[in-house]
Amino acid sequence: MQKPLILVTNDDGITAPGIRNLVEFMNELGEVVVVAPNSPQSGKGHAITINQTLTFEEISLDGPQSDYSLSGTPVDCVKFALDKILMRKPDIVVSGINHGANSSINVIYSGTMSAAVEAGVEGLQAIGFSLLDFSWDADFSQAKDYIQNIVKKVLENPLPKGVVLNVNIPKLKKDEIKGIKVCRQANAKWEENFDERINPHGKKYYWLTGYFNNMDEGEDADETALSQGYISVVPVKFDLTAHEFVDYLGNILNS
Amino acid sequence: MQKPLILVTNDDGITAPGIRNLVEFMNELGEVVVVAPNSPQSGKGHAITINQTLTFEEISLDGPQSDYSLSGTPVDCVKFALDKILMRKPDIVVSGINHGANSSINVIYSGTMSAAVEAGVEGLQAIGFSLLDFSWDADFSQAKDYIQNIVKKVLENPLPKGVVLNVNIPKLKKDEIKGIKVCRQANAKWEENFDERINPHGKKYYWLTGYFNNMDEGEDADETALSQGYISVVPVKFDLTAHEFVDYLGNILNS
Repeated sequence: MQKPLILVTNDDGITAPGIRNLVEFMNELGEVVVVAPNSPQSGKGHAITINQTLTFEEISLDGPQSDYSLSGTPVDCVKFALDKILMRKPDIVVSGINHGANSSINVIYSGTMSAAVEAGVEGLQAIGFSLLDFSWDADFSQAKDYIQNIVKKVLENPLPKGVVLNVNIPKLKKDEIKGIKVCRQANAKWEENFDERINPHGKKYYWLTGYFNNMDEGEDADETALSQGYISVVPVKFDLTAHEFVDYLGNILNS
Repeated sequence: MQKPLILVTNDDGITAPGIRNLVEFMNELGEVVVVAPNSPQSGKGHAITINQTLTFEEISLDGPQSDYSLSGTPVDCVKFALDKILMRKPDIVVSGINHGANSSINVIYSGTMSAAVEAGVEGLQAIGFSLLDFSWDADFSQAKDYIQNIVKKVLENPLPKGVVLNVNIPKLKKDEIKGIKVCRQANAKWEENFDERINPHGKKYYWLTGYFNNMDEGEDADETALSQGYISVVPVKFDLTAHEFVDYLGNILNS
């Protein structure tokens, strides 16, 4: 039997420890091709590169996989891999492991998750993985068995059409992780607080900063599961229609 | 009674004809503040600027509104306006008018719609407007009455929590537009076809190109409504959870 073809990407850049760990885990499950950004692309959401050109290079990194570094966004990486690099459709696309959480509302800002969503739009099985640890020397090994198991389960039981997975892993030792909980996206947001500074020429400039505000203590929310020590898995869709309000709005707008 | 405060943004840049038309239409409905990108930001999706700084300037353009030009993405514009520019919460945020369609799957790539979604995340009423005409000298005036009416209706009947509107306008004369249809997002995608070129130094580079593939002829889909001459309105939500599959996936992943 042919080994599954696994496309790996991320948003922290092709040399980030998170993706190198994910590649190592995936090498044990199938044939791995990496197409990932050549620079950090955090917070790029579903951006694509329209007004600039792209270049790519095959680079040589440890392991049996092939590694391609692209000058674009995570979503560009998925599109480019499918059109120009892979010889056949991948059996699954995995993105990450992100350095930092992509739970709740972070899913819409996340390049990691947008790559997974793009793969879903392409009709592929796709999962984004994130660890709740921003540190560059975070310990990704704790989650190895869980990550491999989730990928295996999805290969055996394909996700419903139009759905990809958003997997977040708490910063815990392996024996402290309580298990996997399938959740909904918590109702949360960032409260902006732009940091104003003055440059050497006297002009004001700003850094985007803020704090995370979780407004949702529901037992079925991903933030709750993570705070309780579970790995949260949210099935994410890209049909953004609020179907339940179509008729209601039709009445209002046509009245 | 205080006039409604209307925040206007877009992704084509603050001087694009589409936003200038929208500003003109909104000036008749309320007090308008414009915070929009200082450069084209098409296809930026929900990108935010994390690793670079932002600057802004008040600029002087025709009309009673205030205009602020920001060096960031459409989502940055909404965040920055709320934190640093507006003295009170806007009653509504309108984004556009985009030069080109943001119907169906385009909603996830669109900076115009991501600005509206960000406003929704902030708990505000929000609408993105797009005209199915990429041309810089497109005629936006045909849609004036429809756009003003939709904004007035939303001000009078606030949208359900967690919902913003994606409004697409066909490229038709006013008397050819058949009316407004509230729809669901059509099932469609872009088929990539990267255009490979060789630079003067012999290195390959690529432009993202492709064609649009509408796989959905449903009567209730936005692409169908547009092709029939209607203005399509899709209620868009940012809870991306595929709620209907939470239990099913729980069984599979924990088996």
